[in-house]
Amino acid sequence: MFDLTLVGIGTGNPDHLTRQAVLALNAADLILIPRKGASKADLADLRRAICADVVKNPATQMVEFDLPVRDASNPDYLARVDDWHDEIAKCWTAAIAAAPGPSTRVALLVWGDPSLYDSTLRIASRLDPAPKVTVIPGITSVQALCAAHAIPLNDIGAPVLVTTGRQLRDHGWPAGIDTLVVMLDGDCAFQGLDPVGVSIWWAGYVGMAEEILFSGPLISTGPQIIAARAAARVAHGWIMDIYLMRRNLR
Amino acid sequence: MFDLTLVGIGTGNPDHLTRQAVLALNAADLILIPRKGASKADLADLRRAICADVVKNPATQMVEFDLPVRDASNPDYLARVDDWHDEIAKCWTAAIAAAPGPSTRVALLVWGDPSLYDSTLRIASRLDPAPKVTVIPGITSVQALCAAHAIPLNDIGAPVLVTTGRQLRDHGWPAGIDTLVVMLDGDCAFQGLDPVGVSIWWAGYVGMAEEILFSGPLISTGPQIIAARAAARVAHGWIMDIYLMRRNLR
Repeated sequence: MFDLTLVGIGTGNPDHLTRQAVLALNAADLILIPRKGASKADLADLRRAICADVVKNPATQMVEFDLPVRDASNPDYLARVDDWHDEIAKCWTAAIAAAPGPSTRVALLVWGDPSLYDSTLRIASRLDPAPKVTVIPGITSVQALCAAHAIPLNDIGAPVLVTTGRQLRDHGWPAGIDTLVVMLDGDCAFQGLDPVGVSIWWAGYVGMAEEILFSGPLISTGPQIIAARAAARVAHGWIMDIYLMRRNLR
Repeated sequence: MFDLTLVGIGTGNPDHLTRQAVLALNAADLILIPRKGASKADLADLRRAICADVVKNPATQMVEFDLPVRDASNPDYLARVDDWHDEIAKCWTAAIAAAPGPSTRVALLVWGDPSLYDSTLRIASRLDPAPKVTVIPGITSVQALCAAHAIPLNDIGAPVLVTTGRQLRDHGWPAGIDTLVVMLDGDCAFQGLDPVGVSIWWAGYVGMAEEILFSGPLISTGPQIIAARAAARVAHGWIMDIYLMRRNLR
């Protein structure tokens, strides 16, 4: 039996850590660090650097474990994700069992915030017996994007849709909403939109040293983003990006 | 001429402050603290407490100023907000001019995050000459809500609409979206919905010592929230609340 704390660490700037996050990491006796093969996108180095920087409790141990590979052969997206989460829960259990000494307070560093397009809560719900789960919020890439461009997320009193590249590609721009934030978009789904009257604010690696920003009318800025994104992906071996689009209907 | 830094401070838990926020406050030579008459909802005490706690730079001065009252007689909501923002920009300018010594680095503590349903960026854009504006992201009440309930914001790969009580009351539940986060709702707009198949996660004073949580089916939890919200508002003299609703269509 153990308590599990999911600690949002923000988007790569170590100064995104809240005091609550620092306290939670130091209260843990085991911190699990996931590895994804040789991919830099697992950000294991950044997690190690954050722990080395803020964890002062000598009783806190770090244990690394390898993430399973997602089964690409299952054509059902949700079932594929579901199976993968089962596998990861088993990896956590094995890593905790293999850690030296009993662990009663386990922590995981979660990129951004544990509530936003992150699987950690769903994986935690598969653990048996169920641990007591505590969530420490972290700065999301949505906020880091707005901060980097110094723009409000919403128009006055107006709604904002947070969505994915897949949703935008499959369903287009939803009716009645003038501001969209698009995440998890590997294919620049904005290409499928009518760009007239749309502005875009884009960031790659937002909050990190590699941060790249573009903003302007979608019609002229979209092609710049596509080119810069492709080049950055080659240069770094991976990319994480996010963008906000607003229709100027007023 | 001065630089202006808008510092997101999270939702009332002083441990929501990021290291970036602490650094920014200590780099300021003037911090403006707004006051709203005798109302506790201005949270001036909390801003003072945060500054007393984290500002160690003896050169950083705090100056308080009174917020103007919104002109309730103008029936046009957006025009009313626009006029009010003009008035606040004048108050900032007067407060900065009245501060002892010249101020080249001015900071404002922004509840939650400067990008989300907050006017500070819009007010800053009215200053003449225009300052260089830097935004430090902070934990939003959306994240604090999800953290308090230990729930994900989104379903897997699914969109989330962040909206207001007014929007929900006037336009109902938008088509094609199963998760709504509702902010700025003084009238429990969920009352106007068909509650069948809807779950709600509600928080009052999220992140603060006074935090109150309710969750469950809307049909049974809605009335509990209405009663608890009214009682808490009387007890504290003000309330700030937020909720997430999900339709269970699968």
